[in-house]
Amino acid sequence: MKLEVINTGGELLLGQVLNTHLGYFSQQLLPLGVSVARAQIVPDGAVIGSAVREALSRADTLLVTGGLGPTSDDVTRELVAEIFGAPLEFNGEIWEKICAWLAVRNLTLNETMRAQALVPRGAAVLPNDHGTAPGFVLERDGQRVFCLPGPPRELCPMFENYALPLLKKITAGARPLTVKILRVYGIGESSVQERVGPEVRKIIGNMDIGYCARPGEVDIRFIAADAQQVARAAAVTQQILGDAIYADGDSTLEQTVINSAIAQNKTIATAESCTGGLVAHRLTNVPGASAVLQRGWITYSNRAKRDELNVSGETLEKHGAVSAECAREMALGALTVSGCDLAVALTGIAGPGGGTAEKPVGTLHIGLAWRAADGAPRVETHHQLLVSDRADFKLAAAQLALNLLRLKLVKAR
Amino acid sequence: MKLEVINTGGELLLGQVLNTHLGYFSQQLLPLGVSVARAQIVPDGAVIGSAVREALSRADTLLVTGGLGPTSDDVTRELVAEIFGAPLEFNGEIWEKICAWLAVRNLTLNETMRAQALVPRGAAVLPNDHGTAPGFVLERDGQRVFCLPGPPRELCPMFENYALPLLKKITAGARPLTVKILRVYGIGESSVQERVGPEVRKIIGNMDIGYCARPGEVDIRFIAADAQQVARAAAVTQQILGDAIYADGDSTLEQTVINSAIAQNKTIATAESCTGGLVAHRLTNVPGASAVLQRGWITYSNRAKRDELNVSGETLEKHGAVSAECAREMALGALTVSGCDLAVALTGIAGPGGGTAEKPVGTLHIGLAWRAADGAPRVETHHQLLVSDRADFKLAAAQLALNLLRLKLVKAR
Repeated sequence: MKLEVINTGGELLLGQVLNTHLGYFSQQLLPLGVSVARAQIVPDGAVIGSAVREALSRADTLLVTGGLGPTSDDVTRELVAEIFGAPLEFNGEIWEKICAWLAVRNLTLNETMRAQALVPRGAAVLPNDHGTAPGFVLERDGQRVFCLPGPPRELCPMFENYALPLLKKITAGARPLTVKILRVYGIGESSVQERVGPEVRKIIGNMDIGYCARPGEVDIRFIAADAQQVARAAAVTQQILGDAIYADGDSTLEQTVINSAIAQNKTIATAESCTGGLVAHRLTNVPGASAVLQRGWITYSNRAKRDELNVSGETLEKHGAVSAECAREMALGALTVSGCDLAVALTGIAGPGGGTAEKPVGTLHIGLAWRAADGAPRVETHHQLLVSDRADFKLAAAQLALNLLRLKLVKAR
Repeated sequence: MKLEVINTGGELLLGQVLNTHLGYFSQQLLPLGVSVARAQIVPDGAVIGSAVREALSRADTLLVTGGLGPTSDDVTRELVAEIFGAPLEFNGEIWEKICAWLAVRNLTLNETMRAQALVPRGAAVLPNDHGTAPGFVLERDGQRVFCLPGPPRELCPMFENYALPLLKKITAGARPLTVKILRVYGIGESSVQERVGPEVRKIIGNMDIGYCARPGEVDIRFIAADAQQVARAAAVTQQILGDAIYADGDSTLEQTVINSAIAQNKTIATAESCTGGLVAHRLTNVPGASAVLQRGWITYSNRAKRDELNVSGETLEKHGAVSAECAREMALGALTVSGCDLAVALTGIAGPGGGTAEKPVGTLHIGLAWRAADGAPRVETHHQLLVSDRADFKLAAAQLALNLLRLKLVKAR
């Protein structure tokens, strides 16, 4: 299969919306042994038609995103239908589904929305379970165009539930690839590569190993037609990196924490200053978090640290709010007040303001409190300097806190 | 000028690296009156040559990024030189610069790096002040190709210091474009279009209007060479949509809330159950939030709601934690305990579990508390059903809460 991607939308060209579709498609297509040969981003309008025609001169399969909505700049449906010579037909079933979808949400129906119930003759409809505009596939002479919605929350479920099964059927003759992802926290990409690559290649000489770095994390990706080879490569890597591997598969750190805590029947409390709720937000993104996260505090002001977590006035005066001492008292306070089994506390300087020579922007103290076997509270603190902007600082600090929770749960096991 | 962008590199197609070049180029080019007509992402290799040839059949100016480095997959230089019939020539001056750059950094020189000192005959060199490989421009018959490095920290200074001045000279006659973005909360994309489009076009018949929907939000984008026309279109839109417009420009809801609160010297507290800290996280993403957000609670358990926010046991028993009554008491509790000027509280069922016939997944109650002129606490509650998955529920609930804070601050002004 030779596949190309066309993303439509002026907002993508203007950079108002970052284009995440391409990486998503690549990850989804890899297990089918299909890679994206080329991708194009075109504005709304007639140029979409030219881009589709040109891509069809090179490829047999196109994934086109965007331009299926109700507004006048949504023209993908018409242009692709025209290329395939397929007139648009009103589909009553889709229209009823759109009406029902809107009614449940108390949204007003208007006439322009009827365009979304138009389907090119002969197209297979791809239902939209998360929005109004359905997608569709048109096929002719061994070539096919998948038209998909732009917003990722509509696109991703539609692609996985309806488009991917069709693509799997088409590529069924090809040997499926086994993909295995191991996620590593706290080791840099080049160190991971130096430690893992040569050892894996000693056993499987031609193993396809990919590395993908995100803030504080590295994914290691093994791809091969032979599932056993992939399993052996993963086992070797586990031996080398040990606890630094936090997930086998594409779980997040927060999923690992919540699932470990549920398995061990442990509860968690959070006390955040510099991360402003991000740690709790990430933990509560995981379904079932309510059995684990009992409560959390965002104590931005000194008064809140005193009132809520019993941080002493003396500590704040002597060491300041951004100090190991304050992180220790925040964690102990959160553990004691909540009655939870584990508590994590963060205090630091996210910037851009607030830094000093002694405590520059990026300074972070984390307190981790837990209960010993006799129920008595224990606490440890960690200190790091994270040189980055405000958003990245919050992200990296939350990663560190989640990883400390994870390691504590792993060791308690 | 008709301009296209070609980004090269397998890592972009695999989504291992997010492509931020496009937005960057667009923002840099708009003041010159130039927009990106089309963008392509191609893997390393011969396909770069085809993409360049095809783009040159449509456009007069190309920005090509990546593939200028020393490794075997860096072939952009050769391919573009071949298209222009310009043989590569070794440039001693560039080579000396590369050697000096490496020496300062204690990096080892190797022979493969000599490729970076090759320049197509007749090309103008674009110096690289942040790396080894220089860029270049080749021009012929009114068409030009800019070859630029991939890494943003090398690309951006090179583009701004050396490429942009050349582009400015070429476009000196063109009229720069004015872009205006208005951000709307709480009205669907098609309603926004129906209400705004015809009214704006009554005044400016050919105004370029774009719409971009995100969860709960719509951006309206006006683009024209005539800045006055854009201003008039924006003024008409302001009249029609009023308070639904939350930002003039690309501010977020949370930026609007924090900036309004700073301007009015108001403090805010948050009390979150179902959003688990997302509202506080978003507010604290805004630099300067520490002057506004004093503290917040994540009260996931009933006990936390009682202990921290003084929600009465009777309310929890009679109405349950997901109720208007509970949201009201949470908001009042947060206001009173924190001593802040405004408090917002959220309680609901994010799912996937926990729903009942009476209170299905997606049920949300928000309490908003503030102080009247005499300092006495006031509170109102809002109820919505947000039909979506857990992540989208949290996002939409946080949007609603931030918008309620915004409207309260707007009306207090």
